[in-house]
Amino acid sequence: MNYAMIFRILGWMLMFEAAFMSPSGIVALIYGEQDAIWLVASMGICLSVGAIMVLVSRPKIRRIYAREGSVICALVCFLYSILGALPFRLSGYIPNMFDAVFETASGFTTTGASILSDVEALPHWLLFWRSFTHWVGGMGILVFVMAVIPLAAGGSTMYLMKAESPGPSVKKMVPKAGQTASILYKMYFALTAMEAVILMILGMPLFDNLCLTFGTAGTGGFAVLNSGLANYSIPQQVVITIFMILFGTNFSVYYLIVTGRVKDVLKVSEAVTYFSIIGIAIALITVSIHHMYPNTLLALKDAAFQVGSIITTTGYSTTDFDLWPSFSKWVLILLMFCGACAGSTGGGMKVSRIQVAFKTVVKELDNAIHPKNVRKIKYDGKPLEHSVLRGINVFIVAYFFVMAASILLISIDGFDLETNFTAVVATLNNIGPGLSKVGPVRNYSGYSAFSTCILIFDMIAGRLEILPVLVLLSVHTWREAGVFSVPGKGRKIAHNSDEELLDENF
Amino acid sequence: MNYAMIFRILGWMLMFEAAFMSPSGIVALIYGEQDAIWLVASMGICLSVGAIMVLVSRPKIRRIYAREGSVICALVCFLYSILGALPFRLSGYIPNMFDAVFETASGFTTTGASILSDVEALPHWLLFWRSFTHWVGGMGILVFVMAVIPLAAGGSTMYLMKAESPGPSVKKMVPKAGQTASILYKMYFALTAMEAVILMILGMPLFDNLCLTFGTAGTGGFAVLNSGLANYSIPQQVVITIFMILFGTNFSVYYLIVTGRVKDVLKVSEAVTYFSIIGIAIALITVSIHHMYPNTLLALKDAAFQVGSIITTTGYSTTDFDLWPSFSKWVLILLMFCGACAGSTGGGMKVSRIQVAFKTVVKELDNAIHPKNVRKIKYDGKPLEHSVLRGINVFIVAYFFVMAASILLISIDGFDLETNFTAVVATLNNIGPGLSKVGPVRNYSGYSAFSTCILIFDMIAGRLEILPVLVLLSVHTWREAGVFSVPGKGRKIAHNSDEELLDENF
Repeated sequence: MNYAMIFRILGWMLMFEAAFMSPSGIVALIYGEQDAIWLVASMGICLSVGAIMVLVSRPKIRRIYAREGSVICALVCFLYSILGALPFRLSGYIPNMFDAVFETASGFTTTGASILSDVEALPHWLLFWRSFTHWVGGMGILVFVMAVIPLAAGGSTMYLMKAESPGPSVKKMVPKAGQTASILYKMYFALTAMEAVILMILGMPLFDNLCLTFGTAGTGGFAVLNSGLANYSIPQQVVITIFMILFGTNFSVYYLIVTGRVKDVLKVSEAVTYFSIIGIAIALITVSIHHMYPNTLLALKDAAFQVGSIITTTGYSTTDFDLWPSFSKWVLILLMFCGACAGSTGGGMKVSRIQVAFKTVVKELDNAIHPKNVRKIKYDGKPLEHSVLRGINVFIVAYFFVMAASILLISIDGFDLETNFTAVVATLNNIGPGLSKVGPVRNYSGYSAFSTCILIFDMIAGRLEILPVLVLLSVHTWREAGVFSVPGKGRKIAHNSDEELLDENF
Repeated sequence: MNYAMIFRILGWMLMFEAAFMSPSGIVALIYGEQDAIWLVASMGICLSVGAIMVLVSRPKIRRIYAREGSVICALVCFLYSILGALPFRLSGYIPNMFDAVFETASGFTTTGASILSDVEALPHWLLFWRSFTHWVGGMGILVFVMAVIPLAAGGSTMYLMKAESPGPSVKKMVPKAGQTASILYKMYFALTAMEAVILMILGMPLFDNLCLTFGTAGTGGFAVLNSGLANYSIPQQVVITIFMILFGTNFSVYYLIVTGRVKDVLKVSEAVTYFSIIGIAIALITVSIHHMYPNTLLALKDAAFQVGSIITTTGYSTTDFDLWPSFSKWVLILLMFCGACAGSTGGGMKVSRIQVAFKTVVKELDNAIHPKNVRKIKYDGKPLEHSVLRGINVFIVAYFFVMAASILLISIDGFDLETNFTAVVATLNNIGPGLSKVGPVRNYSGYSAFSTCILIFDMIAGRLEILPVLVLLSVHTWREAGVFSVPGKGRKIAHNSDEELLDENF
């Protein structure tokens, strides 16, 4: 592990966090909100800590690998959440530091789970910062790290693409990493701008417009009114429904459209499955809830909004779906597990993983019936490598282990089964609201500091797709750095690879 | 597929079911219960249907393979449940046929979930039949089928050992299938007799003694009193706790002990892990519930009983654990998923599968940190074959797919999330009681006929470890038999293997 380089890149990332806070400063100026002085203080802290880290670190080797990449991503999430919580904590609007970190982690991981019971009490600059974290987190920390590393590494070699992490990806289409990041950001900006313009035309106030657009783009879910999105006009709700679903789509689709290969879109089986699931889920829920509405169209509108909001892991709500019938609630819970497309800003297990997992079961059944039929599992027409299948299986197993452990730990607080189960499902999948005591019209403030930490961990683990965070927790990762060094013992885990030996000099 | 042989073996199995009913007849004679005439009628139906099936079938080839084996196991479960429900239905004690099949499937799959609110209203012969199904199901349908096949096949070759199914197994130790079955049955009988003798010494009435012993041995869970096991003496409860845990242990351990290799027991890592999990769970729950008891020893007694009952998937209860704190309930839910040892009479995912799944995650983390370290996953000192790992992964994925679909379907009935979730978990893992409306002092009678069918499916799917039942559902399995035959289309799925071509002549 190249710890010096990790330290240096984290320093750069913190300076960027200070920069990300600046738009909120402009909001404060416009609304003349003087308590934004705490924003300036927070920026100062981020900048200084970041600058010190960059100046202090003296990496001898500037080369970093996928391993370092995943450790950086995980650490950035935690650091951004802690330092990004300063504006909430220093201004006193969230007096408890654990709650403030929860709120910020919820923002950067695009979860949208909140501990606030009255969001309207917050000043504009703070609400803006809260929603802006969604937009920053939406593109995926990895893609952002990819963009920052050249600054820190000074043009050195980079082998980061292997690390998997959410956020759009078009890696199969463009060979160079930097170029990929640039294409993705352009599409992200373009879609964001489109939504903001359409909402403006539909008459939504600019402040609400920007905050909600950030929340949609990042599939986050923080709203600016206590009523969520219930009080916006129906056309505005419909537009947000459409854009939620668009941001949950594999960005490869847009790349194909932009490059004129519209016909190939139907070959992206993940997107096709994603839209099919959405259609079926909307139909099922509409049938299940239509008796609660004056007419079927209104039921359809809310069903579509909620399905779009949950499958893309956004978490906005136009209605208290905790009051819906059991069946509709279970459809939503299953969508929480499913999640959006792999190459999107959404979270969850991802449609493509579910597809592949399903194929492995079908193949095993086939094998049981026709033992001599041996064929590879294909995806989008190409046979899947064994390592990909193994990765998906390990992800699913790790996912359920983390889920089980988290539910057990937060159940110490004594809440009911439904609350604990959906709280973990909604944070681990980066949705936001769960059901019962953490339902759409309630919030997460009831949990103890310990449980809050568990849920912060879940949000970050979910956003980084579990393994990078487990790597961070692994004793092995830190033993090399001498954190657990026992004299004469550290050498035992030395390896034969060149870069490992080189790194250990620092 | 050798459909004629499948048909013939099923016929034999039905005649055995009639034989299994006869001990209940003796109970009826002892207690002078005249409505046992319906038992005789049921036996007659089983015998005649079975005899007709054997006489009508004319298999040209008597050889059967693992594929046929798993189809037979699955069909036997369904047939036994339907025909075994006749005594309940004909006698009128369970007037609804779906409920009667549920009760019987719950017996044979050793689940112990009941739709009866007043078990004490049943006559002795019917209670005995109900508990006896546990004992029959406990040994695993596969082992039983293995014992029956020589009768049907007349000494022909048998390749069944590949089909995996619960029920004890010592296959690594004894090369011959028949010998294995005989060793397992001897150990099963011996343990059952030991429990009955000890309970007799402790003064339990003989009828209760036998019924509860059958339920313990099969890890079933049907009791004969409405109060469950709460009203038996503490020593009796402790003995049952110990025997539940013993029947959930990998039977290899007893084989090692019987053959004098006591030292090797500690090398059976599944058993060691199983006992460690039990110890930890008892400690956690005792701490969590001790404030509800007059003294810690009583809390320890109930904690141990409930942990033993749930991890072995027996499902007996001495207390209404639905009233326990959230944390304790979640410990029990996780134990429901975990289940007992693979080579035992218990259900669930099995300790060894959880262990291996955990190892795959650890290995993947290791790989992420040290990419050049490639080593195989070992279990009990031996490297695991790729096919075993794949089998475990596919099982886990299929398990969660079935679980998700089942919860969704039964949620149409409108019960709360906790009821639906635990109802499926408790039936799919063959436990018995869940929480809330299907908690230990309630029952499953509230569900509609449709949901009852889903839960029957789950019990059987869980008992056969999912895949055999999915094979049964697969279109491919039946297409070969011409069930879905479209002229000229059937040939398309012909295979190159000899036995396939031979079979299609029948």
